[in-house]
Amino acid sequence: MRTLIKNGTVINADATSRADVLVDGEQIALIGQELDLGADRTIDASGKWLIPGAIDVHTHMELPFGGTFAKDTFESGTRAAAFGGTTTIIDFAVQPRGGSLREGLEAWHRKADGNACVDYGFHMIISDVRDDVLDEMDGLVDEGVTSFKLFTAYPGVFFSDDGAIFRAMQRSARNGGLIMMHAENGLAIDVVAGQEVAAGHTDPYYHGTSRSPVLEGEATNRVIRLAEVAGAPVYIVHLSARQALDEVRRARDAGLPAFAETCPQYLFLSLEDMGNGFEGAKFVCSPPLRPADHAEELWKGLVRDDLQVVSTDHCPFDFHGQKDLGRDDFRKVPNGLPGVENRVDLLHDGGVVRGRFSPNRWVELISSAPARLFGLPRKGVIGVGADADIVVYDPARRHTISASTHHMDVDYSCYEGREVTGGADVVLSRGTVVVEGGEWRGSKGAGRFLRRERSANLH
Amino acid sequence: MRTLIKNGTVINADATSRADVLVDGEQIALIGQELDLGADRTIDASGKWLIPGAIDVHTHMELPFGGTFAKDTFESGTRAAAFGGTTTIIDFAVQPRGGSLREGLEAWHRKADGNACVDYGFHMIISDVRDDVLDEMDGLVDEGVTSFKLFTAYPGVFFSDDGAIFRAMQRSARNGGLIMMHAENGLAIDVVAGQEVAAGHTDPYYHGTSRSPVLEGEATNRVIRLAEVAGAPVYIVHLSARQALDEVRRARDAGLPAFAETCPQYLFLSLEDMGNGFEGAKFVCSPPLRPADHAEELWKGLVRDDLQVVSTDHCPFDFHGQKDLGRDDFRKVPNGLPGVENRVDLLHDGGVVRGRFSPNRWVELISSAPARLFGLPRKGVIGVGADADIVVYDPARRHTISASTHHMDVDYSCYEGREVTGGADVVLSRGTVVVEGGEWRGSKGAGRFLRRERSANLH
Amino acid sequence: MRTLIKNGTVINADATSRADVLVDGEQIALIGQELDLGADRTIDASGKWLIPGAIDVHTHMELPFGGTFAKDTFESGTRAAAFGGTTTIIDFAVQPRGGSLREGLEAWHRKADGNACVDYGFHMIISDVRDDVLDEMDGLVDEGVTSFKLFTAYPGVFFSDDGAIFRAMQRSARNGGLIMMHAENGLAIDVVAGQEVAAGHTDPYYHGTSRSPVLEGEATNRVIRLAEVAGAPVYIVHLSARQALDEVRRARDAGLPAFAETCPQYLFLSLEDMGNGFEGAKFVCSPPLRPADHAEELWKGLVRDDLQVVSTDHCPFDFHGQKDLGRDDFRKVPNGLPGVENRVDLLHDGGVVRGRFSPNRWVELISSAPARLFGLPRKGVIGVGADADIVVYDPARRHTISASTHHMDVDYSCYEGREVTGGADVVLSRGTVVVEGGEWRGSKGAGRFLRRERSANLH
Amino acid sequence: MRTLIKNGTVINADATSRADVLVDGEQIALIGQELDLGADRTIDASGKWLIPGAIDVHTHMELPFGGTFAKDTFESGTRAAAFGGTTTIIDFAVQPRGGSLREGLEAWHRKADGNACVDYGFHMIISDVRDDVLDEMDGLVDEGVTSFKLFTAYPGVFFSDDGAIFRAMQRSARNGGLIMMHAENGLAIDVVAGQEVAAGHTDPYYHGTSRSPVLEGEATNRVIRLAEVAGAPVYIVHLSARQALDEVRRARDAGLPAFAETCPQYLFLSLEDMGNGFEGAKFVCSPPLRPADHAEELWKGLVRDDLQVVSTDHCPFDFHGQKDLGRDDFRKVPNGLPGVENRVDLLHDGGVVRGRFSPNRWVELISSAPARLFGLPRKGVIGVGADADIVVYDPARRHTISASTHHMDVDYSCYEGREVTGGADVVLSRGTVVVEGGEWRGSKGAGRFLRRERSANLH
Repeated sequence: MRTLIKNGTVINADATSRADVLVDGEQIALIGQELDLGADRTIDASGKWLIPGAIDVHTHMELPFGGTFAKDTFESGTRAAAFGGTTTIIDFAVQPRGGSLREGLEAWHRKADGNACVDYGFHMIISDVRDDVLDEMDGLVDEGVTSFKLFTAYPGVFFSDDGAIFRAMQRSARNGGLIMMHAENGLAIDVVAGQEVAAGHTDPYYHGTSRSPVLEGEATNRVIRLAEVAGAPVYIVHLSARQALDEVRRARDAGLPAFAETCPQYLFLSLEDMGNGFEGAKFVCSPPLRPADHAEELWKGLVRDDLQVVSTDHCPFDFHGQKDLGRDDFRKVPNGLPGVENRVDLLHDGGVVRGRFSPNRWVELISSAPARLFGLPRKGVIGVGADADIVVYDPARRHTISASTHHMDVDYSCYEGREVTGGADVVLSRGTVVVEGGEWRGSKGAGRFLRRERSANLH
Repeated sequence: MRTLIKNGTVINADATSRADVLVDGEQIALIGQELDLGADRTIDASGKWLIPGAIDVHTHMELPFGGTFAKDTFESGTRAAAFGGTTTIIDFAVQPRGGSLREGLEAWHRKADGNACVDYGFHMIISDVRDDVLDEMDGLVDEGVTSFKLFTAYPGVFFSDDGAIFRAMQRSARNGGLIMMHAENGLAIDVVAGQEVAAGHTDPYYHGTSRSPVLEGEATNRVIRLAEVAGAPVYIVHLSARQALDEVRRARDAGLPAFAETCPQYLFLSLEDMGNGFEGAKFVCSPPLRPADHAEELWKGLVRDDLQVVSTDHCPFDFHGQKDLGRDDFRKVPNGLPGVENRVDLLHDGGVVRGRFSPNRWVELISSAPARLFGLPRKGVIGVGADADIVVYDPARRHTISASTHHMDVDYSCYEGREVTGGADVVLSRGTVVVEGGEWRGSKGAGRFLRRERSANLH
Repeated sequence: MRTLIKNGTVINADATSRADVLVDGEQIALIGQELDLGADRTIDASGKWLIPGAIDVHTHMELPFGGTFAKDTFESGTRAAAFGGTTTIIDFAVQPRGGSLREGLEAWHRKADGNACVDYGFHMIISDVRDDVLDEMDGLVDEGVTSFKLFTAYPGVFFSDDGAIFRAMQRSARNGGLIMMHAENGLAIDVVAGQEVAAGHTDPYYHGTSRSPVLEGEATNRVIRLAEVAGAPVYIVHLSARQALDEVRRARDAGLPAFAETCPQYLFLSLEDMGNGFEGAKFVCSPPLRPADHAEELWKGLVRDDLQVVSTDHCPFDFHGQKDLGRDDFRKVPNGLPGVENRVDLLHDGGVVRGRFSPNRWVELISSAPARLFGLPRKGVIGVGADADIVVYDPARRHTISASTHHMDVDYSCYEGREVTGGADVVLSRGTVVVEGGEWRGSKGAGRFLRRERSANLH
Repeated sequence: MRTLIKNGTVINADATSRADVLVDGEQIALIGQELDLGADRTIDASGKWLIPGAIDVHTHMELPFGGTFAKDTFESGTRAAAFGGTTTIIDFAVQPRGGSLREGLEAWHRKADGNACVDYGFHMIISDVRDDVLDEMDGLVDEGVTSFKLFTAYPGVFFSDDGAIFRAMQRSARNGGLIMMHAENGLAIDVVAGQEVAAGHTDPYYHGTSRSPVLEGEATNRVIRLAEVAGAPVYIVHLSARQALDEVRRARDAGLPAFAETCPQYLFLSLEDMGNGFEGAKFVCSPPLRPADHAEELWKGLVRDDLQVVSTDHCPFDFHGQKDLGRDDFRKVPNGLPGVENRVDLLHDGGVVRGRFSPNRWVELISSAPARLFGLPRKGVIGVGADADIVVYDPARRHTISASTHHMDVDYSCYEGREVTGGADVVLSRGTVVVEGGEWRGSKGAGRFLRRERSANLH
């Protein structure tokens, strides 16, 4: 099966060119100008951009949380991702407390295998650092699960103390794995949250105010310093606060291998969105949405590469039936927002259309940098030999985000009614057209597990 | 009883003047020039300085630690202090784990009462933050124990987790107490220390290397940020590392009420002193001595008021019979150094004689700032109405520090053989001459417990 | 003549005490409690504070500027100062361009001698750095003119280029003089100002907008770095912008001997005050008033000692007849504000009453630090042997600032209608009551020229 | 003419792939795997890398300086460049003082036209900012000379004062040109240099010590701030000192569009190289070589993208006959070093081989970033449609740098005897092989003037 994509403008992270692209089987076989070749299928991309399929390195399909599950399955979630131009996700397998990493990883393989519509990898959440668990890390790295997440938040659930985090970092320094950190001071936050509820402040808004940005900054510095002493790189997930960004900047200015992602919700939404009574539950995630002035700093961080990646932390719960578990106590609202489908367009609109950065930097943030940082050399670029994950992107199409039209399995959208410019017209996953003309052409189970390499060049 | 001190140069923190000082009873009654008054006793201070009696806000007399006790009693320790020009100490009472603050405070009152030779106050170490303990804090503040120490180090012993520290800080924000922090990341340090011992690195030197200055910087930032969120000031004890000073500076530059002390051992000694086999045990304290380049930064901090106080952390253990408990494992070496007798002269020598700062700043660091920060308005100044704690100081006298001549009850000196310029000739404690001509003239039990005020003006 | 001041509370920079003060002749002779002595005159200071007479290190009496003269003479200006609690000023003698320092200094001596009502010293403005001028500096230092001001602003008038400034700094490093800098990038500012006028923006408001705070930050860093290379301390005058403060902080954090003053106009007024048409001319000074958010940073700087002094830059021009020289072009508005009479009360109100800092810090900022930094050991303290410059200050008296009641010879007040708490009741200058009950008791010509020492301990 | 390069590994800034590249005429026509196509010539690149031809944005061919001329002509210099893998240079045309930009530009066109062996562009040095010169800038931008250099150094020669620099920046903000700055405080430096010579310190070593790195930091901050106020981006040339890098970092952290290059001499050489009597003249350039500890900071800056480009500042003078003009006075040594031939290999060796950064980052620093920042969209990438400037690079070849083998027309090498790993095997300039097997295959005059676009996306 050969597909020829003609007349598009190829946008890679480092260059832009007018070129035709020939896909042969699952890979990109040829790039040239005015290619005149036989092909089973020809796609005319005149006036369109060709970008490498986007990579979302932070999703939680079917995550159990607070007595319920994130609503999107690997099937519905990866299909929605593809509609939004994302052809690879890296989801988080969870070690059961007291159990082994293997046990958690296998459970996640079972969820994804035969269901995912696009390619996927796994990070491993370590819930319980023990000697045997540290040993297990080495094996996982060897089999392509090369990154591990720990938490300074959620005491009693995912929380690890500093000694445990430090030991995992030391191990990663030896086995080449990458430690990812949820960095908020959960112990102090839980004190404040408890005081708020005790004072009758049970609305979702207090979720936001009880998690001070100062405490995200604190934990960010803490894990960076633990990594410094351990001699390991560290990657901060879902960075939301100016204070945390300042710490990442400070570390990077000093030459430390500290990396961070932010998410669209921290760029486009703010604490004020949480203010409308229980409606605010739609926006409950951790770290929480911040006062509006934080966002501009985050954009600056994206421009300057102090933030290297934009992921979604996609973790959708229905407003009706799930979020309302916390109607009387914001602490019981399941944490998480839908977003896997919207990231590419939001970033295009807020970044490229608004003139904050170039199309190339956009591609870098949503695809190339994720590929590089998470060991996926065949992804993140439109180049000969790379997987033919290609999005024919219309940079001019205007459309409105809405739960009534999105493909995620969740009953609301955080961006309801927001008009954005830019959208994926045709999406190829390893050479197969999966989305076209707003229709689903892919198939459940076509996505493959990606054995990732160790992160390289983490300078 | 009236004592007239004639012809001295009065050195206060803000000014220098030639003046005669009349002590009437326990207080300073009159300051004038060429006073010609009847007095029971006249001291000629020609060519000498009169400075307010120094205040050491960090001592551990008779502290139980690692199965033994700091050797100096309140009697021997305060007498040695007086010989060195220090006429007030603030020692740390310790809450027994599981017990009450009151219980610990009373135990310390029993140790000091009737024994101390100069005035003393207490800080309270909180070992165990519970609701009832938080309530107790309020009462202690009211009765003059207005500062509380917690630890991010020593897991299983003094360690409190961030939630506990945060709650204590919140309480102090309400009751006006001041939280003092031992800031090192003890959880990570204990991992490293265990690894060192497992690797056969049992010498005292590894005590120094296993406690990274980066981890002091980390914990310093952490407690400053917890205090920021709690709305409380915070005081960092025995700051030793450049990284920690940088965090204090950063906080102060941003207008946060963060304060810190350092100690002579971090100014005059270094990690290299720990290198000589088990001799290094003489220098085992926490934080440990640092590589030599840290000291110059600390001096800078003293000049610029990023460090406000020099205390000693006096906690002496005999080399023979106590320090050697850790001969096979540096973790078992009792932590602590003698120093209460040497601080004033060392700082005079290293600060004033070397031209780093003025005599006035010296007085501020060793006496006036401690008085202000710890609620002792009648101490720290030679002024009318103040307690007549006065040192007739000879800025030109050279002498050699040695265990063979010092008055502390410990079998070695950290500064053995070091020659310093400057020494106390006559020392008055509340109007009574306690040291004169190198002889002890004071009396056991003459020291009084100081009910301290709340720290004021902690900007 | 002996004056006994009874029952007051003595506020020095380092301590507060209840004490009686005996003045004998021109000096403070005795400080005690409940002094019962014969005196020619007794002042009852019950409920009042005794503070050392304030020192204003930045005034411009009779300064020629833009074709006119600052209105206050040494007589009227120092009398107004005394009413406001200021008993010492340091004014700026100006080297005529092409002439000698000596020539300028003598001219200023002639203005002050026999006219000044309180003590005064001189800084020397260097308009024209030449080899012979550098040589003259040494002599001036020896005769008590120990500080020199240069400008990066006012091209063609006071401006010196970086080479000239650097040479003067090198000389000061040798002769112990202190270089004071007006730090704004005048060359760039003049470009902007010219463009504004060319665009028809001639209102005083554009004076404010054409002098970017970024350009004050720039010049501040520049002169600090020149001083660093020259091995000299440097003192920034009338610091107004957050950016400039950041540079001073950065330098001080690195241990450089950089110092700075700010002025009440930058703490209490803002750019918005300049907006009301030509009324804005009342507030034209350089650096200009800044947007309101700068002031809070300056207050922080005062609390943290990144700013060591508050002076006035007193340089009054009548609104009618002088300021209106610039009615058609803001560049022709004489630069300068009246303020010598208001500083002490404004700082008391904004600093002490508002709880930003202690009364002691207030005294330090307005009196003790100026005395220490500018070589006046007999000023700045209420201590035995010091000059009897004493203010009996009522910290509770409320009054309203107004041109209709002030004593400065200028037809408007920048603070018209502002109510402040605190005021000088009785003012002594070298033992003589000069202000009492709102009446002038002093005499023209009683003020003496102060031969200042070299600044000491400029760490 | 079609050339097929087979079996190489294509290294672009964003990705690495195994691919064959077909060059058709002057451009890259096709990229594919195992291309089996007819071609006039086939190059086997097995085991080699294909990198985009390197771009050196800072050269001075035939520059008049101090009474002599930089020795390399456009012919010899571009040929040497090509031997070293550099296929594009941007040289500096110089406005004659008092003359027009046009006049200078035409003179440089005459030097290059018909002589250059590879493609070249021009920056314009503005010696004399006048209204008519500002107007000329617009025209030059339109015709492809889109960058302008000014100097804070060299008073009396290239120096512009801050007002002039600011005006040029304002103009560039409007016309889209990019201002490049030589940032050293030349006025202060000249004072020091004069003092050194007066003290008999005439050796080249004193060139190094008389130009303090603090004064480079100062000027760097200054021009960044002028650009900030002007609303223009700014590019710092030949950044050499840690202090200057700190300023660039600070600006970038704050979101300002500040950019900088460094040069191999600052990465591989140090002040110590200047110490050997007059031999040191070989290393006289401005800014000077710095103490060795600066280099590691510069490498960090390259890793973190605080430095975006490595250029050479190639400006060769023979040691015998040119450098010796300054035998009696270091100020008369012509400033400049040879290097255009060595940059690519040195950076490969010090960056890639030493593991500091990836091959992709190396390509970005020497080719892609220069292309992007200086408006050359057809250069800097191996991509379809791009100019066929391709280097077949052998990453394993070891060779020794020496004047006896280099192709630059200068009688010494700064890197004499240094062994490096990596070298260009075959070099194509717009499709033509110009270097192969160590032999020159190109032709004088084949290089074309590049009309550059405005710099885009200068975030």
